[in-house]
Amino acid sequence: MKRICFSLGLLIILTLTVAGQKRILNIPDLPGYVTLKCDLHMHTVFSDGSVWPTFRVDEAVRDGLDAIAISDHIEYVPKKDFIPVDYNAAWKIAESSAKEQNIIIIHAAEITRSMPPGHLNALFINDATQLKKDSVMDAIEAAVKQGAFMQWNHPGWKAQEKDGIPKIYPLHRKLLEKGWINGIEFFNEFEYYPKVLDWCKQYNLAVTGNSDVHEIISEIYTKPRDISRPMTLVFAKERTSESLKEALFAGRTLVWANDIMGGKEEFAKPFFYRCITVGKPYYENSRNIYFEITNKSDIPFTLVNGPAGAPDTIKLQPNSVTMIVLSKKITQPLIYDVKNFLTGENSVLKVEIKLE
Amino acid sequence: MKRICFSLGLLIILTLTVAGQKRILNIPDLPGYVTLKCDLHMHTVFSDGSVWPTFRVDEAVRDGLDAIAISDHIEYVPKKDFIPVDYNAAWKIAESSAKEQNIIIIHAAEITRSMPPGHLNALFINDATQLKKDSVMDAIEAAVKQGAFMQWNHPGWKAQEKDGIPKIYPLHRKLLEKGWINGIEFFNEFEYYPKVLDWCKQYNLAVTGNSDVHEIISEIYTKPRDISRPMTLVFAKERTSESLKEALFAGRTLVWANDIMGGKEEFAKPFFYRCITVGKPYYENSRNIYFEITNKSDIPFTLVNGPAGAPDTIKLQPNSVTMIVLSKKITQPLIYDVKNFLTGENSVLKVEIKLE
Amino acid sequence: MKRICFSLGLLIILTLTVAGQKRILNIPDLPGYVTLKCDLHMHTVFSDGSVWPTFRVDEAVRDGLDAIAISDHIEYVPKKDFIPVDYNAAWKIAESSAKEQNIIIIHAAEITRSMPPGHLNALFINDATQLKKDSVMDAIEAAVKQGAFMQWNHPGWKAQEKDGIPKIYPLHRKLLEKGWINGIEFFNEFEYYPKVLDWCKQYNLAVTGNSDVHEIISEIYTKPRDISRPMTLVFAKERTSESLKEALFAGRTLVWANDIMGGKEEFAKPFFYRCITVGKPYYENSRNIYFEITNKSDIPFTLVNGPAGAPDTIKLQPNSVTMIVLSKKITQPLIYDVKNFLTGENSVLKVEIKLE
Amino acid sequence: MKRICFSLGLLIILTLTVAGQKRILNIPDLPGYVTLKCDLHMHTVFSDGSVWPTFRVDEAVRDGLDAIAISDHIEYVPKKDFIPVDYNAAWKIAESSAKEQNIIIIHAAEITRSMPPGHLNALFINDATQLKKDSVMDAIEAAVKQGAFMQWNHPGWKAQEKDGIPKIYPLHRKLLEKGWINGIEFFNEFEYYPKVLDWCKQYNLAVTGNSDVHEIISEIYTKPRDISRPMTLVFAKERTSESLKEALFAGRTLVWANDIMGGKEEFAKPFFYRCITVGKPYYENSRNIYFEITNKSDIPFTLVNGPAGAPDTIKLQPNSVTMIVLSKKITQPLIYDVKNFLTGENSVLKVEIKLE
Repeated sequence: MKRICFSLGLLIILTLTVAGQKRILNIPDLPGYVTLKCDLHMHTVFSDGSVWPTFRVDEAVRDGLDAIAISDHIEYVPKKDFIPVDYNAAWKIAESSAKEQNIIIIHAAEITRSMPPGHLNALFINDATQLKKDSVMDAIEAAVKQGAFMQWNHPGWKAQEKDGIPKIYPLHRKLLEKGWINGIEFFNEFEYYPKVLDWCKQYNLAVTGNSDVHEIISEIYTKPRDISRPMTLVFAKERTSESLKEALFAGRTLVWANDIMGGKEEFAKPFFYRCITVGKPYYENSRNIYFEITNKSDIPFTLVNGPAGAPDTIKLQPNSVTMIVLSKKITQPLIYDVKNFLTGENSVLKVEIKLE
Repeated sequence: MKRICFSLGLLIILTLTVAGQKRILNIPDLPGYVTLKCDLHMHTVFSDGSVWPTFRVDEAVRDGLDAIAISDHIEYVPKKDFIPVDYNAAWKIAESSAKEQNIIIIHAAEITRSMPPGHLNALFINDATQLKKDSVMDAIEAAVKQGAFMQWNHPGWKAQEKDGIPKIYPLHRKLLEKGWINGIEFFNEFEYYPKVLDWCKQYNLAVTGNSDVHEIISEIYTKPRDISRPMTLVFAKERTSESLKEALFAGRTLVWANDIMGGKEEFAKPFFYRCITVGKPYYENSRNIYFEITNKSDIPFTLVNGPAGAPDTIKLQPNSVTMIVLSKKITQPLIYDVKNFLTGENSVLKVEIKLE
Repeated sequence: MKRICFSLGLLIILTLTVAGQKRILNIPDLPGYVTLKCDLHMHTVFSDGSVWPTFRVDEAVRDGLDAIAISDHIEYVPKKDFIPVDYNAAWKIAESSAKEQNIIIIHAAEITRSMPPGHLNALFINDATQLKKDSVMDAIEAAVKQGAFMQWNHPGWKAQEKDGIPKIYPLHRKLLEKGWINGIEFFNEFEYYPKVLDWCKQYNLAVTGNSDVHEIISEIYTKPRDISRPMTLVFAKERTSESLKEALFAGRTLVWANDIMGGKEEFAKPFFYRCITVGKPYYENSRNIYFEITNKSDIPFTLVNGPAGAPDTIKLQPNSVTMIVLSKKITQPLIYDVKNFLTGENSVLKVEIKLE
Repeated sequence: MKRICFSLGLLIILTLTVAGQKRILNIPDLPGYVTLKCDLHMHTVFSDGSVWPTFRVDEAVRDGLDAIAISDHIEYVPKKDFIPVDYNAAWKIAESSAKEQNIIIIHAAEITRSMPPGHLNALFINDATQLKKDSVMDAIEAAVKQGAFMQWNHPGWKAQEKDGIPKIYPLHRKLLEKGWINGIEFFNEFEYYPKVLDWCKQYNLAVTGNSDVHEIISEIYTKPRDISRPMTLVFAKERTSESLKEALFAGRTLVWANDIMGGKEEFAKPFFYRCITVGKPYYENSRNIYFEITNKSDIPFTLVNGPAGAPDTIKLQPNSVTMIVLSKKITQPLIYDVKNFLTGENSVLKVEIKLE
């Protein structure tokens, strides 16, 4: 409202963060799919977060997301002396703001129990009030009845697993058998659990990665540190809530969090090749050939274990062109491990750089 | 809680913004007084702000403030469908957090009316509920009865004054006569009103400057722009709420907002000389003398209209040493106007740089 | 060489600016042409610059340029007591580094005279030594004989034109008649001269914009200020030195410098439409239609003077999506002036936003 | 020269890095001494650096240094085809610029041999030409004859010590016996060698830390990473070249490099206590006492291994106040190890926090 500051003889035009400006994320689509950038876990003053629900929509707009889920706790409502408990309030408040700003907002809630089963997000529900039950199985069942996609949150969170290692307890096994776990957080806030990648393969679940933000996204990720907030990349048929839900249940996801990627190889491989372009050699001399690899995406890739005659390590910085010098004596194909693209607890993506 | 991020082979230690770290502001004291850095105007979810009250305390800690007033609107409570109206809630919630973090928190509320009289902050009250009255005079009287310091907020705000120029209406004159206006905002958010400096001199009021923040301080001031949030500098006998109140009623203040200072000359002059040190000449040749001016403060000063033989303009950057070259032929004293230190609508601080 | 810093218990991996990493500039091509990003004016220790020639190549790589011209002064060689005068030295030193890093380097020199004619860059020469002549006409002729493209540098530079306004003197007219001026700097370092746009149209010359850097690009533009270095965008048939030369002589250029664009309308118009995409409406209510304009380029555009029912001003930030709310009552086409895209001294680009 | 950029309707005032502005470093003096901030190792175009000598002075001014030594290589002069060898040139060129800007410039050169003895800086010489000898012993002797302070540079540099561990060879022992090594670099560019601290204690040498910069200080340290350039802190009787030399020979130094400090305990201890202030308790409840530790310096300190009832770890951020909560049951003194303040290969500074 009161935005312009005149110094004496010095005019500062302040480009305020305007509602209405969305950052473009350079994240490729996969053939036949549109990549939806999602944060499926966040909090507001309606549980233990510090902000009003519309603020989460504004953050999503600024950060270039397509979809968010506000997932306030069912069992933990510390502000209830001042704010009456209403498990659907955040959804009701944020919905119209999301519509006007072209953000898909998923109606959600976090079932918040001790381990096992720990915390689970129920996504795509109709009424969070139904999830308030004594028994956790009843709570989950209530969500499932509403068609919910159930995400097991931060399975290795140290407050619940001293050693930081996620474990599948008998109760989880039971939930898996019933189809009541549909995805697991591989990445949460700043930490991740490589084991989750193997489980998602084994049980055919969606790999997810989310901020679980309670305070301010820009103060946690973007500003002092200049790192990217974690997000679940969902390969959906269309940019709609329904398509998003279908893709999540089908497990078509990858996770991106700053300099870490994780997910199933079937999506990881085509995704990587969509991010990079290999140029024709632009120069050569008696010993070497020079060419460029262009990384059009916002994601850094670190290629290691290159063959003799090629660089052992190649860092493909985001939105950058990397010059490569190759010995003319090279005999092997340019096969590399993408060190920061995890496909399992003990495996990373393997790629080949093909020169034209 | 879940704070450490292991990349494969890459360990990022994230120094999170810890509750418990306070920035040191380089703002000098005046002889006999301690300078309290205050923001006397801010909002939370209890009126039209976006954050929980304790978040305002955390922001104050980080920014190195000594005192804040959360001043939610009495007459404008847009979240009341979800949060029951409680005019004292922000104060009750924030108080213990403030104590533990050594922040003075002033119990306050904003009387929010059309112009005249516009908006007024009642500071140092006991019960904001009493300020809910039909008549604005009754509301102000209720505050005054509680011993309130009454601050007239953003008198030239364009939503209430089309031309952006503050005006003293008959109603204001009446309030001034009764002693019911004790200070006026010279600076609010990003804008300021030089006229206010003359009025504060004439009526013996405190000059104040505040953020009036509704959203996130770091997103408005610090991060994308790297500018300082506005603050009221109060010259108090001690660092206590009582001393702060005494100093405000006595009008012992200056306002600092990024590259603008404003206030009465009696405080401006000694304050400026406390910020700078003039060094002995460190070098000379046949024509010139070289010396340094050290600005130990966080405030930039722009000196203009220097005499012949000296630089016409001297920019004393914050926390910097500026080298000055002086002609040996100089005959006049080094008298300058401090262009960005306002003392009235048409006057700025005049200073002399004295070489040892 | 010595790059890794181990703190006790704290490992900082320092991602150094590696030779080999090139920033991608988001600047579109025009149909049939590739857009070459060029800086046609810079200095080294071989005249009055502060750096070694290969450093200019390294800067160009980092900044994503395609071509540079090192144009040390012929008539001003202040370091000659320590570095023997060799007008071709910078070229000889930088050439192989440029080849290996895929940068087109233009052999050049700056003829440096008082006004008129002021300073002129001779680009695409073979031997700068031939340009050392008593008479400026002889110097220019020597360059032209080598096939040089002659660029008139900073025609309104205040050191040569007190009022900062460029003027065509009789000597310039003579040069223009002979075809010895082929381009004029519209932008130099931080300043620009709108008149140049009209002259370039009238005389069919290339509009250029360059840094004229003497010190460090990152210290002048990128780091403390986060602004883009100026560049001449050349629409060439191929990414070769020959094509670049052909395109410059043909006048197929635009100039980009942070938030300013300048050039001929025939290139400005298609260039603008290549930068933006208008989306389908994503939401509507009884009164309004909501749609998005995507600006895929690194260039901000400020659209002003919109019709009734549409926003008067639209800021299309670089690499951003801007949400637009349109009244359903709108009757006129969405025609705007692009305030920061100059096409003449008194004209800016006019565009129409067409909704699908 | 050409500095002001007018956008249409948008005026950007560019605060250029002015010669004449020096950053204040918050580094305390020791009783009886003034702390001189020095970089005793750097290069220019006169050996294998990329910049002109005066640029090193300008960088020092900006960074708030007191003294620098330009130490171009004697035995490595790769630009000699274009710049005739003159070992004193950098000194001659930089000297007057240093005087005018109040920077102490030390005449120096780097004797550049294979290991042993590796590289040695001769500081405070008169004529670097005398150091060009076939035998390294002759070269060092020539420097010593001029009264040089001899600094052994980067003793663990991996190009000369595969394992990165510095070693004292018989040749070094001989030099130490003759008094021809007077200081050793504990820190160089980004790496450091804890063993050096023990040697400096044992042989009574000065501990030093320097940038060894070849390119641009702001591109290596300050801008993309926001880390501090390494510096040797010298405790001199006065701010003169002579006092600096006396203090170096007396070994009165510490090294600061971003988040690492190193040196002898006799200087480390009083230096630490000069950096911090412990406040009076500001709050208490039934269980705890709250007080503040102020770190007025630019140096972070990480205190670890605290006693029961006190925080195990305390991070004292630069220019910050840290709040400490202490159990009332505490019985032991607040003794901590300062993890990032090394005093030997296996020792760090031990300090006591004394509450008033």
